[in-house]
Amino acid sequence: MANKVKEAWKAGKAVVNGWLAIPNAFSAEMYAQCGWDSVTVDMQHGVQDYLSCVACFQGIQPSGVTPMVRVPWNEPGIIGKVLDAGAQGVICPMVNTPDEARRLVQYSYYPPQGTRSNGPIRAGVYGEAGGYQKTANENILVIPMIETKQAIENIEAILDVPGIDGIYVGPSDLCFSYGLEPKLDVEDPFVLGIYEKLLKETSKRGIAAGLHNGSPAYAHRMIQMGFKLVTISNEVGLMVNAAKAAVKQARGG
Amino acid sequence: MANKVKEAWKAGKAVVNGWLAIPNAFSAEMYAQCGWDSVTVDMQHGVQDYLSCVACFQGIQPSGVTPMVRVPWNEPGIIGKVLDAGAQGVICPMVNTPDEARRLVQYSYYPPQGTRSNGPIRAGVYGEAGGYQKTANENILVIPMIETKQAIENIEAILDVPGIDGIYVGPSDLCFSYGLEPKLDVEDPFVLGIYEKLLKETSKRGIAAGLHNGSPAYAHRMIQMGFKLVTISNEVGLMVNAAKAAVKQARGG
Amino acid sequence: MANKVKEAWKAGKAVVNGWLAIPNAFSAEMYAQCGWDSVTVDMQHGVQDYLSCVACFQGIQPSGVTPMVRVPWNEPGIIGKVLDAGAQGVICPMVNTPDEARRLVQYSYYPPQGTRSNGPIRAGVYGEAGGYQKTANENILVIPMIETKQAIENIEAILDVPGIDGIYVGPSDLCFSYGLEPKLDVEDPFVLGIYEKLLKETSKRGIAAGLHNGSPAYAHRMIQMGFKLVTISNEVGLMVNAAKAAVKQARGG
Amino acid sequence: MANKVKEAWKAGKAVVNGWLAIPNAFSAEMYAQCGWDSVTVDMQHGVQDYLSCVACFQGIQPSGVTPMVRVPWNEPGIIGKVLDAGAQGVICPMVNTPDEARRLVQYSYYPPQGTRSNGPIRAGVYGEAGGYQKTANENILVIPMIETKQAIENIEAILDVPGIDGIYVGPSDLCFSYGLEPKLDVEDPFVLGIYEKLLKETSKRGIAAGLHNGSPAYAHRMIQMGFKLVTISNEVGLMVNAAKAAVKQARGG
Amino acid sequence: MANKVKEAWKAGKAVVNGWLAIPNAFSAEMYAQCGWDSVTVDMQHGVQDYLSCVACFQGIQPSGVTPMVRVPWNEPGIIGKVLDAGAQGVICPMVNTPDEARRLVQYSYYPPQGTRSNGPIRAGVYGEAGGYQKTANENILVIPMIETKQAIENIEAILDVPGIDGIYVGPSDLCFSYGLEPKLDVEDPFVLGIYEKLLKETSKRGIAAGLHNGSPAYAHRMIQMGFKLVTISNEVGLMVNAAKAAVKQARGG
Amino acid sequence: MANKVKEAWKAGKAVVNGWLAIPNAFSAEMYAQCGWDSVTVDMQHGVQDYLSCVACFQGIQPSGVTPMVRVPWNEPGIIGKVLDAGAQGVICPMVNTPDEARRLVQYSYYPPQGTRSNGPIRAGVYGEAGGYQKTANENILVIPMIETKQAIENIEAILDVPGIDGIYVGPSDLCFSYGLEPKLDVEDPFVLGIYEKLLKETSKRGIAAGLHNGSPAYAHRMIQMGFKLVTISNEVGLMVNAAKAAVKQARGG
Repeated sequence: MANKVKEAWKAGKAVVNGWLAIPNAFSAEMYAQCGWDSVTVDMQHGVQDYLSCVACFQGIQPSGVTPMVRVPWNEPGIIGKVLDAGAQGVICPMVNTPDEARRLVQYSYYPPQGTRSNGPIRAGVYGEAGGYQKTANENILVIPMIETKQAIENIEAILDVPGIDGIYVGPSDLCFSYGLEPKLDVEDPFVLGIYEKLLKETSKRGIAAGLHNGSPAYAHRMIQMGFKLVTISNEVGLMVNAAKAAVKQARGG
Repeated sequence: MANKVKEAWKAGKAVVNGWLAIPNAFSAEMYAQCGWDSVTVDMQHGVQDYLSCVACFQGIQPSGVTPMVRVPWNEPGIIGKVLDAGAQGVICPMVNTPDEARRLVQYSYYPPQGTRSNGPIRAGVYGEAGGYQKTANENILVIPMIETKQAIENIEAILDVPGIDGIYVGPSDLCFSYGLEPKLDVEDPFVLGIYEKLLKETSKRGIAAGLHNGSPAYAHRMIQMGFKLVTISNEVGLMVNAAKAAVKQARGG
Repeated sequence: MANKVKEAWKAGKAVVNGWLAIPNAFSAEMYAQCGWDSVTVDMQHGVQDYLSCVACFQGIQPSGVTPMVRVPWNEPGIIGKVLDAGAQGVICPMVNTPDEARRLVQYSYYPPQGTRSNGPIRAGVYGEAGGYQKTANENILVIPMIETKQAIENIEAILDVPGIDGIYVGPSDLCFSYGLEPKLDVEDPFVLGIYEKLLKETSKRGIAAGLHNGSPAYAHRMIQMGFKLVTISNEVGLMVNAAKAAVKQARGG
Repeated sequence: MANKVKEAWKAGKAVVNGWLAIPNAFSAEMYAQCGWDSVTVDMQHGVQDYLSCVACFQGIQPSGVTPMVRVPWNEPGIIGKVLDAGAQGVICPMVNTPDEARRLVQYSYYPPQGTRSNGPIRAGVYGEAGGYQKTANENILVIPMIETKQAIENIEAILDVPGIDGIYVGPSDLCFSYGLEPKLDVEDPFVLGIYEKLLKETSKRGIAAGLHNGSPAYAHRMIQMGFKLVTISNEVGLMVNAAKAAVKQARGG
Repeated sequence: MANKVKEAWKAGKAVVNGWLAIPNAFSAEMYAQCGWDSVTVDMQHGVQDYLSCVACFQGIQPSGVTPMVRVPWNEPGIIGKVLDAGAQGVICPMVNTPDEARRLVQYSYYPPQGTRSNGPIRAGVYGEAGGYQKTANENILVIPMIETKQAIENIEAILDVPGIDGIYVGPSDLCFSYGLEPKLDVEDPFVLGIYEKLLKETSKRGIAAGLHNGSPAYAHRMIQMGFKLVTISNEVGLMVNAAKAAVKQARGG
Repeated sequence: MANKVKEAWKAGKAVVNGWLAIPNAFSAEMYAQCGWDSVTVDMQHGVQDYLSCVACFQGIQPSGVTPMVRVPWNEPGIIGKVLDAGAQGVICPMVNTPDEARRLVQYSYYPPQGTRSNGPIRAGVYGEAGGYQKTANENILVIPMIETKQAIENIEAILDVPGIDGIYVGPSDLCFSYGLEPKLDVEDPFVLGIYEKLLKETSKRGIAAGLHNGSPAYAHRMIQMGFKLVTISNEVGLMVNAAKAAVKQARGG
């Protein structure tokens, strides 16, 4: 199955990404039909584990949207499992050093680029015609999260690690790490300056930069600023906001 | 636990009701915190069964919102089970005759009013101080759905069945039954005329009328028209609408 | 697999029965190892459905204890399903008339005694050597619950229905039905008089009588009185009582 | 989504149908990719319930194979629920009289042909372009099981009920009902004579006949005999047979 | 939500803690209502994983009892996930060195004390008024398990690690580590001597000491000895003991 | 419970092993009855996690077949958990150095051989008579996977690590690691030469060698070559192959 994110990036386009915190295939199935280019199962902060990720992938599959995962940690067991389950992109939290980036690459790619173990139990069914294993290294996106002061300080060395396809910025952890209030849709010029730097460094290496956003308006601005992957909140966040507004309106508020 | 819907109705107020189609406790837990007076697990058209209903009830519980169920059918087994699980209201589809209404009442109440079997496995924990069984018949709402031509024709006899606390109108089935296109938020004067009749007949018997709505604006109008319980779509509908709008906005649309 | 309850009854002995309300295979597995003759999954008032019943049966299986089910209602779909899953006894609530007893028998037995449909998906694996279908009608216990005034008034006709192996008394519903407070371990002479009558009528037909009890002491008395199957509360009840006592003792109470 | 079974039948072709007893989306997903025209979730004798059926449907969806259900019983609640979940065919056990056939039709079709309630929570997403509700009555197959002596005796009246698209023969129950040993792939001339009669009566009314088979060889013969839908065992049966053979061969047997 | 364990410790009081091995929300819900100050989901030796922990937390929530977790290992992914799910205390097995203690602290606290990533998906809903992130480091208990000879030898350095709120003693592993038989409720003076030392060292640093117990009587003694958190067996252990006793008594034993 | 693999190896016999990728107890239960000596839950490449492993073990238990696990990674948390759940053998992927082998041994054995933590929540129930903890180190098999060039180069040092009971060869990863196409049932003389070397080195140390096979015929050859544990594909692979063949045959192909 073609990786729509990879294709968009090759064409210089930005993708709009959905984010799944609810561990349920039906919810994922309906959400995947809303116009996203890709949908990411959040196994770090979402209420998700490996089997709920598989269920969400099954829900996503008919939509043709590219399935990705944010893994809970930079650990070979779970990275292998989500790729076997069909993830076409791995977003990994808290990659702060080039060594951590190299380990992420190693866990994600088959030999000779990496040491991923063979056994694409579900991914193999939806793999490219020539055989999943032959194209997996080309087809899968490896995306470390840049979300600490340490990572910013190491950014050039991290980006120089071969096999990194993109980065994903976690604004609230980034703020936390600099002693600022943890939040999304930041307007602080200091943080926006970091974004500029990240866009410059990724851009000159042909690497895409992604960002987690709280609102569609901010996400739109960030696309215009140069981000190539923007996520908007998550499905439970959009649902809760919509519900609160609906209740208020129904009460005449 | 006090039944907030019953209290509101005693005070002549309308309640705003949430509707759950996603079979997941986390999703229900978050949705219950959005300002609803009550939340109903939809076991008829939602992706719900008995155990997912129990899970949703556990998610709802901390919010203090009144839990209700739309049962899949007018059948004693499942009505007993959802009441034992803690439902404080039973909305029953397709009640078209006084006999069907009497059976609904019989299945929902303990003796002597009905024949519900004793064993409130979860409800008992959150029951009134004096003992769940002593107050259950007072505390539980029995709400037949009025959603067919046949039911409209039998409406007075149905409403005269002792033990009916309210009715709930399913607009799309009602339209279907009259040969109209099945939809919510109907503007057809013929259907609105039926609503007027239902409000009049329920009102003169001290019975509340509820309605399923597609939008908060229509729900608000229906409260003003006299409905005492308005549901707005369901959680997956609000989520999907919000997501489609967010994707469009993020793309600059 | 031999039906230990049937064997005990043939030998004139009483069996001690466990009762499962927690929908979990591990909990059932541990509970089945506590010395019971049989363990019953309570699909009526327990937090159980069909798939949790199958899971509990899988947990029970290694213990060799006889698995039974209390079905939620006298309905052919679920009775067939639990038998296919491996139930060796069906306890059915609210059997109040000989016609209801006949329907229960019909749903539970293969032709020619009944109309149960063939397909013992899990039961077949653990069936008798000669083939499950050949011995099922002999091996399965059909046990209507006697728990209303109406059932007591019809008791002789109910017991005369061919295929009834035993009855099971639900004391709290029986009390409710007579306008008494619903409870277990009843000392009211009127109710005890009913028990005497039931023991006499079952005994003279070679049918066993069972009873749901709240405490082991009362259960022991009832065995001595003539009951051939005694259940003690359920696993969650025993657990909660033990926990409350332990907390109190740990606090020095 | 086009109904491949309906299309094949219109073209006079037979379909080969898979059968799911394992309540798991992954298993269903893999099985759906094996070349079947349709796959049926067996909620009667399979280890399936409503939510496992939804999960299996999600697993089946990407394959494009037509999803059907054998419901546990001729009951409006569950028939509505599986259709809402996306079933494109309903196989209903033990339809023995024209009245039972009429009730099955009533539960399966929207007005005016039937009384199915509106709310295709999952089916609506994959419905035809013009709107699911507009085409559902055309697109869904209603298939009573003919599996008793009584049904054979009533066959003409059953087949004359408007809305019946096909019948499905359960050989083991049919045998049971006639006092024969319950089994599949029957060679008894008496039973084969019944098949001939069923093929003749269905054929002259433009109704398809289906059959449950134990082996692919017998299924092939039955296609040649005139059956238009043949199921081969189920996924767990094929798996177990393959495993036993593999173990034997690995041991050199 | 106030942390009742922290409040009790500030007031110099001991808490009585429940322990959950059954992966089920209903079981947890009932157990939480038995009088415990806190209830801990045992993800190490209990039959629990992350999603069952979330379910148990949902079951516990209405009781107001403080939810804690014993994580399976000292690993940042799972520690972050259980805190996001709402754990107010983390009990971590096999902390044997000050470095391991420092890592536990790092994984458990937000910056600047630690490197926990921001995203309290469920915890945020029940957080303190001022915002979960602002008070989490104050509100969460970090409790390494002291259960090996190596840990005892390193105890002072471990206790000196900033951010340690308490320790939890695992008697059977401690015995194992010293070559003794692994068991609870130890009377061996050598082991009791270790307890004395642990109580002295923790006490002088204002740190609480907890202990896993087999019986309420021993737990009571340990409170009197100075332990500030005592667990009694687990829910399945109490259930099994109660059931064995009940069976015996019912049989007249 | 006796470890049938260990007993076979002591007697110099080879065992035939089943492999479970489907996360379902019913599927596992049926598969375990097919004649295998042992059945292994594949938590690395199978669609399995810890709770599905427990469920599969419960399904396997009545068959008396020895339950084993392939863990997702060489990590103490999950190794302890599967042993507590009842695994009698641990197959660990990607053990490439003696240090990694030593860590595997350490995580798998109780003191003094290792540092496994005490708490055999489910295993204890089915343990040997004298007490599970006393015999666990004797009864459990520790089996590193040899599946990389690095492991082959380190093979003697790995095999010399005390506590290693056997090795398990993953042919496709082994091929991958040497730059060959990843596949099973390899005929490449170079790879077969590696097998010879492994058989020689294990044999002279009294250690068993196992191999993952794609077909029963190849597995049989490998037994004859000297392998003492042969797995044949997995349950989903055998099912899919059987289904494809059945569909083809039913269509007359």
